[in-house]
Amino acid sequence: MQLTILGCHSATPRISAHQTSQVLEIKNNVFLIDCGEGTQVQLRKYKVKFNRIKHIFISHLHGDHYFGLVGLVSTFRLLTRETDLHIYGPKGLEEVITLQMKLGGSWTNFNLIFHELSSKESELIYEDDAVEVHTIPLIHRVYTNGFLFKEKEGERKLDMNAILNDNIDVAYYRKLKQGADVINEDGELIKNETVTNAPNKPKSYAFCSDTVYTESIVPIIKDVDLLYHESTFLEKHEHNAFPTKHCTAKQAASIAKLANAKQLVLGHFSTRYDDLNEFITEAQEVYEPVDIAAAGKVFTV
Amino acid sequence: MQLTILGCHSATPRISAHQTSQVLEIKNNVFLIDCGEGTQVQLRKYKVKFNRIKHIFISHLHGDHYFGLVGLVSTFRLLTRETDLHIYGPKGLEEVITLQMKLGGSWTNFNLIFHELSSKESELIYEDDAVEVHTIPLIHRVYTNGFLFKEKEGERKLDMNAILNDNIDVAYYRKLKQGADVINEDGELIKNETVTNAPNKPKSYAFCSDTVYTESIVPIIKDVDLLYHESTFLEKHEHNAFPTKHCTAKQAASIAKLANAKQLVLGHFSTRYDDLNEFITEAQEVYEPVDIAAAGKVFTV
Repeated sequence: MQLTILGCHSATPRISAHQTSQVLEIKNNVFLIDCGEGTQVQLRKYKVKFNRIKHIFISHLHGDHYFGLVGLVSTFRLLTRETDLHIYGPKGLEEVITLQMKLGGSWTNFNLIFHELSSKESELIYEDDAVEVHTIPLIHRVYTNGFLFKEKEGERKLDMNAILNDNIDVAYYRKLKQGADVINEDGELIKNETVTNAPNKPKSYAFCSDTVYTESIVPIIKDVDLLYHESTFLEKHEHNAFPTKHCTAKQAASIAKLANAKQLVLGHFSTRYDDLNEFITEAQEVYEPVDIAAAGKVFTV
Repeated sequence: MQLTILGCHSATPRISAHQTSQVLEIKNNVFLIDCGEGTQVQLRKYKVKFNRIKHIFISHLHGDHYFGLVGLVSTFRLLTRETDLHIYGPKGLEEVITLQMKLGGSWTNFNLIFHELSSKESELIYEDDAVEVHTIPLIHRVYTNGFLFKEKEGERKLDMNAILNDNIDVAYYRKLKQGADVINEDGELIKNETVTNAPNKPKSYAFCSDTVYTESIVPIIKDVDLLYHESTFLEKHEHNAFPTKHCTAKQAASIAKLANAKQLVLGHFSTRYDDLNEFITEAQEVYEPVDIAAAGKVFTV
């Protein structure tokens, strides 16, 4: 599982401060999460293949999280894309995008499928053989969701030495991977756990931006491997955090600690800060390990 | 009069191919013309003061000409702008922008005043003491206007040697600037043209993008000082120009020649071309002087 940060600054884009957008590669899926203005150029910069993106998740309808979406959809069209594109985001997103496509006389050759969200409870919004995506209801100035990406439990791993020793026919390998006991060539019952090993532990990633400090998300993201949590401010500006429904680095670290996250990545920095290392220092007082997001940075789990 | 190119490529934005946007400084006005995705970052890069922009002109509702507008308006809001902002563009633009502001719960503290255009005839859309702006109806796949920016005739210039010689009281200087004859201290009638000189010739700039080749614009832009005309293609791809309602460099040069433009700037290049100097070579076979647009390039008249 690999997360690439395309942008992680809040509010207004600047020459070297790109707005929220990330690419998550997980079990052959390439998910785009949020899409601030200029995201398509960042995708090119970091060499993400456009046609591998089939699902886009939008947290909320503040511009710094989705004003780049309509341009990306238009570019997909100009690149003569034919693959379906699924977009998950708050109610209203379909109207915004289709209105602009209509006014430009720009209908797509591919299916543009909107999955509009309005529930205040966590819900399963995407599932395939290997991955699930759940919403994480956040508390912000407008309706907002984070997203929890979870690998499913994989198949058991064959212990080839034990299998050959036990004289098991190749026809049973699939059953073994699925956890079943089998009969070997000599008619003996072979217990599954004696010839297979447990699958790799499924990985998970939680994206939580934007939100005020809320412990309501802790049960949803419990034991997550990688947690991206917004920290727009440092504690010295905590008086700005609550009114604007944002968090400080310390608050983000508190959530990571409560949720027993394996790793915390901070992001959504206000452009007022020049030295982002202060975010690490502040968070580390509560929780380790912690890192800060930066455009182009890759986190591998 | 000074024109700064922020971007001049068509279709999809790339790391070093910015979409259409320009800033025209004319008689204390700073006009923004078109606003492709990423324009606000280009404005910062070329140090255009955001609060000097009071009028934005949008040619048409294809994304490469206006997808950066909503982000710019949002940024004006975050910068706590209070000055009125006037936006001129095709019908539908107000709905697009206000829908996005509404969904983001992001109302502006400044007046956002839309002037929606739908006429197929050239019309005067802006006027102050020193400048007029007229539409230039273009022919494209959707409703499109170019814009003609014209300085008004200025006041006559005082010939101070002649004035002092003729013993004219300072109280009459204003009348002289306005072209009137006056009576001097000795009671003699002084003819205006003997003590003043003609004002500077008013300058004009015509922005023509996007359009198919059409001579219908020639009477509107006749004798213009600076003409920006789209040339998406070279002649070798002329077969692509007409179906997509675009021009070649040669066609742009033909318009410049017919209109007796003093200078031609080519732009709106397809990203398929690596060597843009070919556009100059091709255009020069028909018309000189010609130059090509580039992000950051400044043209002064």
